Amino acid sequence: MSVLTSLSGYPEWLPEDQFVVQSFTRLIQQKFELYGFAPIETRAVEPLNVILAKGETDKEIYTLRRLQAAEDEAGKDLGLHFDLTVPFARYVMENRGKLVFPFRRYQIQKAWRGERPSLGRYREFLQADFDIIDENPLTVQSDLEVIQTVNEIMLALPVPEFRILINNRKLLGGFYRALGIEEYGGVLRTVDKLPKIGEEKVYEILTGEQGLSTEAARKCIQLGKIKGQDMDAILKEVNSLGLSHPLLEEGLYELGYVLSNCSRQVRSIVHADLSIARGLDYYTGMVVEGKFVQFPKYPNIIGGGRYDNLASTGSVKLPGVGLTIGITRILGLVLHEGLLKASRMTSTCVLVALVSEELRGQSIQIANALRARGIPSEVFPRPLKYGRQIAYAERKGIPFVWFPDENGQGAGEVRDIRTRTQAPADPASWSPDPADLSVQIVRDDAALQRLLESTHYR
Amino acid sequence: MSVLTSLSGYPEWLPEDQFVVQSFTRLIQQKFELYGFAPIETRAVEPLNVILAKGETDKEIYTLRRLQAAEDEAGKDLGLHFDLTVPFARYVMENRGKLVFPFRRYQIQKAWRGERPSLGRYREFLQADFDIIDENPLTVQSDLEVIQTVNEIMLALPVPEFRILINNRKLLGGFYRALGIEEYGGVLRTVDKLPKIGEEKVYEILTGEQGLSTEAARKCIQLGKIKGQDMDAILKEVNSLGLSHPLLEEGLYELGYVLSNCSRQVRSIVHADLSIARGLDYYTGMVVEGKFVQFPKYPNIIGGGRYDNLASTGSVKLPGVGLTIGITRILGLVLHEGLLKASRMTSTCVLVALVSEELRGQSIQIANALRARGIPSEVFPRPLKYGRQIAYAERKGIPFVWFPDENGQGAGEVRDIRTRTQAPADPASWSPDPADLSVQIVRDDAALQRLLESTHYR
Repeated sequence: MSVLTSLSGYPEWLPEDQFVVQSFTRLIQQKFELYGFAPIETRAVEPLNVILAKGETDKEIYTLRRLQAAEDEAGKDLGLHFDLTVPFARYVMENRGKLVFPFRRYQIQKAWRGERPSLGRYREFLQADFDIIDENPLTVQSDLEVIQTVNEIMLALPVPEFRILINNRKLLGGFYRALGIEEYGGVLRTVDKLPKIGEEKVYEILTGEQGLSTEAARKCIQLGKIKGQDMDAILKEVNSLGLSHPLLEEGLYELGYVLSNCSRQVRSIVHADLSIARGLDYYTGMVVEGKFVQFPKYPNIIGGGRYDNLASTGSVKLPGVGLTIGITRILGLVLHEGLLKASRMTSTCVLVALVSEELRGQSIQIANALRARGIPSEVFPRPLKYGRQIAYAERKGIPFVWFPDENGQGAGEVRDIRTRTQAPADPASWSPDPADLSVQIVRDDAALQRLLESTHYR
Repeated sequence: MSVLTSLSGYPEWLPEDQFVVQSFTRLIQQKFELYGFAPIETRAVEPLNVILAKGETDKEIYTLRRLQAAEDEAGKDLGLHFDLTVPFARYVMENRGKLVFPFRRYQIQKAWRGERPSLGRYREFLQADFDIIDENPLTVQSDLEVIQTVNEIMLALPVPEFRILINNRKLLGGFYRALGIEEYGGVLRTVDKLPKIGEEKVYEILTGEQGLSTEAARKCIQLGKIKGQDMDAILKEVNSLGLSHPLLEEGLYELGYVLSNCSRQVRSIVHADLSIARGLDYYTGMVVEGKFVQFPKYPNIIGGGRYDNLASTGSVKLPGVGLTIGITRILGLVLHEGLLKASRMTSTCVLVALVSEELRGQSIQIANALRARGIPSEVFPRPLKYGRQIAYAERKGIPFVWFPDENGQGAGEVRDIRTRTQAPADPASWSPDPADLSVQIVRDDAALQRLLESTHYR
């Protein structure tokens, strides 16, 4: 039936997987709030002129029309937002008088792109964005807080080994200028491909298409190969290339400030990677990406950086720094490959069995008493044989079944369906083990091991 | 600037209001889970044939097109979902083999309708839906659990006085048949308008357009006027109309079961209202609406009921019962009229002041120590005069400013900016008052009073 056709690129999860989605979203939200980011949501649609203003390719955008649009709606075309940055910039300009700067916002919403679905790329996807935006120039403090936040988030999420990669556009720009390359956009984008296409191919493009001398091309590649967590070592390597420029110094200072402050933390997964440039033109300082270490072919989970001029209108330019965490992209790996599982298919902790139609009131009372104490419960709807009521609990992973007294005289007994032990209990005082109260997210280490042994994403 | 034009019907909130949205969503979600409903999310789009299959007017639907769609995409038109029921029915049929029935789901998502925006009606709106759906006929137990859940939710939300209104299609159908009216769709919809257009107008339509005798029309109106929480009184009133029919008895039993069980709870805002029918044809038993008692002109916040045949394909028909809570509709009243406010504009509890560029590391350490203990903190980005740093905290409603020791020697002092008291403190042990730790949602009783004295929504 056509009605039942899944749509390619539009992921939907079963309830047990949706618990994983929710736990990710909640954890990310908590961390954002711990770092003082305030929530906003923007509408899903923007006027097409807003969406296209930033020069994003128009091929990927979904436009919207009312099925029976009136004539007067022509020219008022709307499109679904393809990211959360463009709507954020519009929101900030629109509400500028009501916001207090520096404004720190987070925004967890879906976005849509019409591009062809592929590995980790969806047409509908959930993103978590956060930014600090100001009316005055931002200090490197803001870069650091953004990176600290994402470092803490990625360490807290139960995902495979992760690495946050940072670089700085000033560093790159200064270095290229010191080499005499004034228009370095093409060089930037070429060196950015170093991890993907390799050294030889990059060298070929730099000396060919980009017209660099063999000496300059070699230095660009050497710079792009510098990486690590030790800023002193990185400085030494950059200095050994023998170039200097005020912008290069500034970029090194900013990179070092973030990297060193992170390294001082108990645990940092932040690494410098001097090949990273990011494609979009609006970045002006720090640039950031993030990847699963063991799955290099899986696309970036994190992207973003510092921009001096994204939200602007007329003479007003608001500088900012911010990142996007691709939640659906993470889930595309961890749920699709079964690396995480929920402990059960429903929130219900206790299924209250139904003895008979006549004793329905008794089961309802027990469930109400449990709920009043915060224990998720439901009453089985029909007075079937206990075996069938237990089977329902087992299939959903509900840990406890409550059997009310068959004469309607007492509270009855509660059964742990895993241990098959049963004992008298009172719904006014009985409590489950805290680990059973709510749905737990469990790692499947065997699934990760199997994935690591395969060639997927490697 | 056109870029900054708000779109009519697309509400967006400031961060302080977004905290209210989030607290509502979180509370509703917790209650759903307490009653054993499991989360799902469906994609925002459906093929047009799915959306139109239920016969909903096509005027309200937004269709989607890729800006540069290829030829082969013709006929594959997508539309944004206009509710969460149609996608849910599709999801259940699509995943039937993987779900365990009875399936209890909740779904909190946005939906879109292209209709003209008006009081409480938006083009983009957030809804919270929950349903119990089964492969076997549902019992009245499911009706009750759905109503209990929404009763608990509406009592827990900090909103003006609310009432949940229930009726039963079988009751109405049996009554009309006992009056000799076999095709009673028109009568149903006419009596449904009783609260809106009044008794006389309804009588006119029933005896005119609908062709009822004066006697039958009077009885229909008398039935429609019956309401209340006392099922015995309601039964007496219905019986006094002197009609009987097996379907009427069944409907009265079902209505009474839900109403009586609710009334036995500590507090019930569930009332029978025998005028209610609901427009959509698929309801077959209980029907539900919900309104603000003091604002009768404000549209329904809640809608739903029992359906035997919504999710179906071929010979398979899955009966269900469920409700929609219009979150944006609630917010359209409580936020638009300022009935609720967040205690501050940001999650930040402590602003750590910056003494000087040199002592930045000290401020970062204090903020990190606070965050490690779950206290939302941020560092002021520039070493401005303390007055300006305090002013920033005041404008955002951040309750505490932490002043690090000016010689970089100690932890410094923390200032409550409301009481202007300041005392030495250690970030490893200091804790705010629990009420200050996170954003609180506060009622503005004066705003409610002003609204009650106006003619808005009355």
